[in-house]
Amino acid sequence: MAKVRSVKYRIYLLFMLGFRIRGLNIRSIMGVPGDMNLELLDYIDAVEDLTWIGNANELNAAYAADAYCRVSGSPGVVVTTMGVGELSALNGIAGAYTEQVKVIHIVGTTSIAAHDKRLMIHHCLGPSPDHKVYEKTSQHVRAAHCWLNNPAIAAREIDRVVHECIAQSLPVYIFVPADMVHCPVPAPSPSRIDLALLTDEFSKASAIAATLSLLYKAKAPTVIVDALTARHSGKDVTRKLVDVLRFPTFSTSMGKSIIDETKPYFCGIYNGQVSIPGVCEVIEQQSDLVLDLGPILSDSNTGGHTRNIAEQKIIAIHPHHVIVGGTVHRNIGLVSFLSSLLETIDKSKLPRPTLPGRIPMPPAKDTDTEFITQSWIWTRFGEFCRPGDILIAESGTAQFGLPDAYLPRDVTYLTQVYYGSIGYTVPACLGAAVANCEQGGQGRVILVVGDGSLQLTVQEIGTMVKLGLKNIIIVVINNNGYTIERAIHGPEQAYNDISTWNHSAMLDFFGAKNGRACSRTVRTKKEFDEVVSLPEYQSPSSIQVLEVFMEKMDLPWRLRMQVEIINKRNAQARKNEQAVLFPS
Amino acid sequence: MAKVRSVKYRIYLLFMLGFRIRGLNIRSIMGVPGDMNLELLDYIDAVEDLTWIGNANELNAAYAADAYCRVSGSPGVVVTTMGVGELSALNGIAGAYTEQVKVIHIVGTTSIAAHDKRLMIHHCLGPSPDHKVYEKTSQHVRAAHCWLNNPAIAAREIDRVVHECIAQSLPVYIFVPADMVHCPVPAPSPSRIDLALLTDEFSKASAIAATLSLLYKAKAPTVIVDALTARHSGKDVTRKLVDVLRFPTFSTSMGKSIIDETKPYFCGIYNGQVSIPGVCEVIEQQSDLVLDLGPILSDSNTGGHTRNIAEQKIIAIHPHHVIVGGTVHRNIGLVSFLSSLLETIDKSKLPRPTLPGRIPMPPAKDTDTEFITQSWIWTRFGEFCRPGDILIAESGTAQFGLPDAYLPRDVTYLTQVYYGSIGYTVPACLGAAVANCEQGGQGRVILVVGDGSLQLTVQEIGTMVKLGLKNIIIVVINNNGYTIERAIHGPEQAYNDISTWNHSAMLDFFGAKNGRACSRTVRTKKEFDEVVSLPEYQSPSSIQVLEVFMEKMDLPWRLRMQVEIINKRNAQARKNEQAVLFPS
Repeated sequence: MAKVRSVKYRIYLLFMLGFRIRGLNIRSIMGVPGDMNLELLDYIDAVEDLTWIGNANELNAAYAADAYCRVSGSPGVVVTTMGVGELSALNGIAGAYTEQVKVIHIVGTTSIAAHDKRLMIHHCLGPSPDHKVYEKTSQHVRAAHCWLNNPAIAAREIDRVVHECIAQSLPVYIFVPADMVHCPVPAPSPSRIDLALLTDEFSKASAIAATLSLLYKAKAPTVIVDALTARHSGKDVTRKLVDVLRFPTFSTSMGKSIIDETKPYFCGIYNGQVSIPGVCEVIEQQSDLVLDLGPILSDSNTGGHTRNIAEQKIIAIHPHHVIVGGTVHRNIGLVSFLSSLLETIDKSKLPRPTLPGRIPMPPAKDTDTEFITQSWIWTRFGEFCRPGDILIAESGTAQFGLPDAYLPRDVTYLTQVYYGSIGYTVPACLGAAVANCEQGGQGRVILVVGDGSLQLTVQEIGTMVKLGLKNIIIVVINNNGYTIERAIHGPEQAYNDISTWNHSAMLDFFGAKNGRACSRTVRTKKEFDEVVSLPEYQSPSSIQVLEVFMEKMDLPWRLRMQVEIINKRNAQARKNEQAVLFPS
Repeated sequence: MAKVRSVKYRIYLLFMLGFRIRGLNIRSIMGVPGDMNLELLDYIDAVEDLTWIGNANELNAAYAADAYCRVSGSPGVVVTTMGVGELSALNGIAGAYTEQVKVIHIVGTTSIAAHDKRLMIHHCLGPSPDHKVYEKTSQHVRAAHCWLNNPAIAAREIDRVVHECIAQSLPVYIFVPADMVHCPVPAPSPSRIDLALLTDEFSKASAIAATLSLLYKAKAPTVIVDALTARHSGKDVTRKLVDVLRFPTFSTSMGKSIIDETKPYFCGIYNGQVSIPGVCEVIEQQSDLVLDLGPILSDSNTGGHTRNIAEQKIIAIHPHHVIVGGTVHRNIGLVSFLSSLLETIDKSKLPRPTLPGRIPMPPAKDTDTEFITQSWIWTRFGEFCRPGDILIAESGTAQFGLPDAYLPRDVTYLTQVYYGSIGYTVPACLGAAVANCEQGGQGRVILVVGDGSLQLTVQEIGTMVKLGLKNIIIVVINNNGYTIERAIHGPEQAYNDISTWNHSAMLDFFGAKNGRACSRTVRTKKEFDEVVSLPEYQSPSSIQVLEVFMEKMDLPWRLRMQVEIINKRNAQARKNEQAVLFPS
């Protein structure tokens, strides 16, 4: 009996988890230590090439894990402690869920013995606490979860949950009771997780046939590349496909940088009525077929739901199904479909529409020759970027402005448009920089964050300093508070004001050597141009902070336009609502 | 019809909410603006004597609201935006729930119209989103909630939910769809919320009789004062009662400062086996009757569940029931019971046990005459405090050390022992300072926080600066990382290290004028004594920061003892667990 057991149970549960994580090509783990996960962390430390980052707080850790996945392609992992840490991370996990980002959230909990006795252990909820109650708070923001509380099936449970994370490109939860950490479990079989995604081949064949038929017949086809192609691991195949098709191709705000913007077929950003004049005309009126790749049809990604494309002319490739002219073909993986399409396309039958090229911005109304304006700065960032850079746009003016930046090839653009949680980007910058380092990336990580958003998650800059990350440029847009909220309501209301921080002291406070020297402030275009030409900005050997002062009520045109659309609609809705509530 | 309506619907819904809040004696509102609560915030602004604070993030806002309640006695209020803000605040609300603190969380959501259409609005969850899904995440950390989506009953719903907040001393949620903000509703009736708490008078009479009978018969009675007396608005009556009883009286760690520690009947802190030698003997062995007022029997409040008092000799006064020698008397409010007890006691029949006085600490083993040690600093804080001060202890060494501080009368001591969420105290310091100002308090707010915990929520110091709060002293215990975690596991593991911040630059970064001059560093006892004797520390005219360097592995004796108890128990439990999982 003893011998059988030693064959059967031959790996410690947490080693197993560590190896599974490493097997996904993950090399860094985010999180915060706590007394219910400390022993678990020993196993992370013990797995070769797996590094504990250690974040300033758990919300930041979740945001960082999200961005780590967006850059590396492998799931982000975040480890927290039951309750206090787990709930703090929840908003970051919800963002990953709604934006379809792979995150594995490992929660160290009290022991099974304590669960059974309902002991009042710290971090628990109320008298006679249910120790598993927090698990319920995350049920709507995860694809799957497991409790590692049964050694016989724990290994299988890990594999099942990780598979769901990959297959659905959504967060998952693994709960580890403290008394299971050192538990021996059966050696896993197979030795690697089977990550193959199932596709209904019959359904796919019919969708491919329908798609090809429309493609070959089209006279003026266009392509829209949206975020879910990248989120569902389809960036490479998407790039290959558009390169074969060579149709006029647009990105959405969320899909920006998935395809190479320097290609002759790239025409710009399509965002419903909030687009450069001429864009809607090409897609909505002149085009007779729209290949819509990985769409997320949220308000800010569609100009406030103002896309206007006839259903019959859309071929929409969703993560798990394809809709061809209104007909739904189910159970088809996005990558599987795009790969098969690429293989089966007969190039000679494809239409060769004329390429309008990148549709130009109307001449800017920027009459200020001296100071930095919204109509000037965003395209300037495009010029500043180089191949290999990662450009990160915080919710607010940056997110509405940077779609105007014309990006060099191989720039990765990160932003959280659908969830839109302010503060996301500072920890995201950390996660992106960590993934970038792992991949040996030589590009810079350029964060553009507003002074308001910065305040929510600022402490993660300390983690960047701790890790000795170098290639980071943090641009703080200082427009004196929540400008995006001022645009929406209450331009002069005190609730849109914030604390006035001394951003020049930020790096110094977070322990950066030479922090003051690496912190600069600009107000004019000339100053901006001078600073970004400095060698430290071309090839930073330590984190750089650039504070850009801008007018409080200067808005990017896209934000102004989006707000106008929403306000008009809300006013109408309110009228209708009142009519229903108080009929005259 | 029009006339009837104009009489019936005569107040805007959000004015009604604002007035109800003001009617609870609340004067400050915590929170972060967002596009789904902006119009709502206009109404807060419009109510006389109601002030919007504006926090750096929502977790901080929730923590601040919690502490505002602990100091003012009125519920803390926090306003967030659906999803992104609401979930960020969740951990703070959970802390208020488990520690039984009154908090009203108002969430601005998308419009009812958008709910019905399941529109993909930013902050929503996934495709075809359920806009009310986030409400489910908080169902286990609140006593009640309502959606203000029906003008006919909205006013009643507010009153119902606020009543539950007060009656149960727990958080509640009020969800406000954007299109209801300007909605006219029936004028509330009655003009103030009825906050009377129901008590079963028959049950109370029998509990009082049983209690008095035991009190009069007792020869060596003792009293334990715990946190739920204060949380359920019973601080004053508790103080009066112990002053009449004059029995040897102890506080728990969580109940510290509820009663006056300078009274001759105060004997010290009772925390099971983690008590000063002699304390357990008085309560557990020598006493024949223990009046246990408002107990929270969580691990860290009971020396790791090592209280050992025979059930028959306990009279336990819980928030909603009383247990006399094992017999439960239900539906009795704590304040109602204590008030009636006070009224009915015949002082002449009470025993007059000899008072042992404050049980002295054993002579400290502090042999370091120069540098600041754990065995020296905590009693020193007691000497530093003055009547009217608020002393706040972060989870970690401060929380295990400050029970040794002998406090002057009328010092309010705040700490979060049961929930134990690190980072709580920095925003709590803000909330406490705001409440203190409102009450015209002249005392100082003294925060003692570790360098690790500080990192989670540091940005709230910016809000203190923004508000121009003066009377705040922030003591940062710099022991180079998570010392409490090192005590538990991994003393030298890298995961217990943190980023090394330059705390002298902290106030400067957060915009304080003269920030550098108000930031000091001490390593020796002499330096500490000199600094805290400075006029700026006796009567601060701006926020002061004092960084106290201490040894990484120096531990308060209570922490060391608690960890020993837990480790011994865990080792035994693991043995038992393994025996069950893998029977030989």
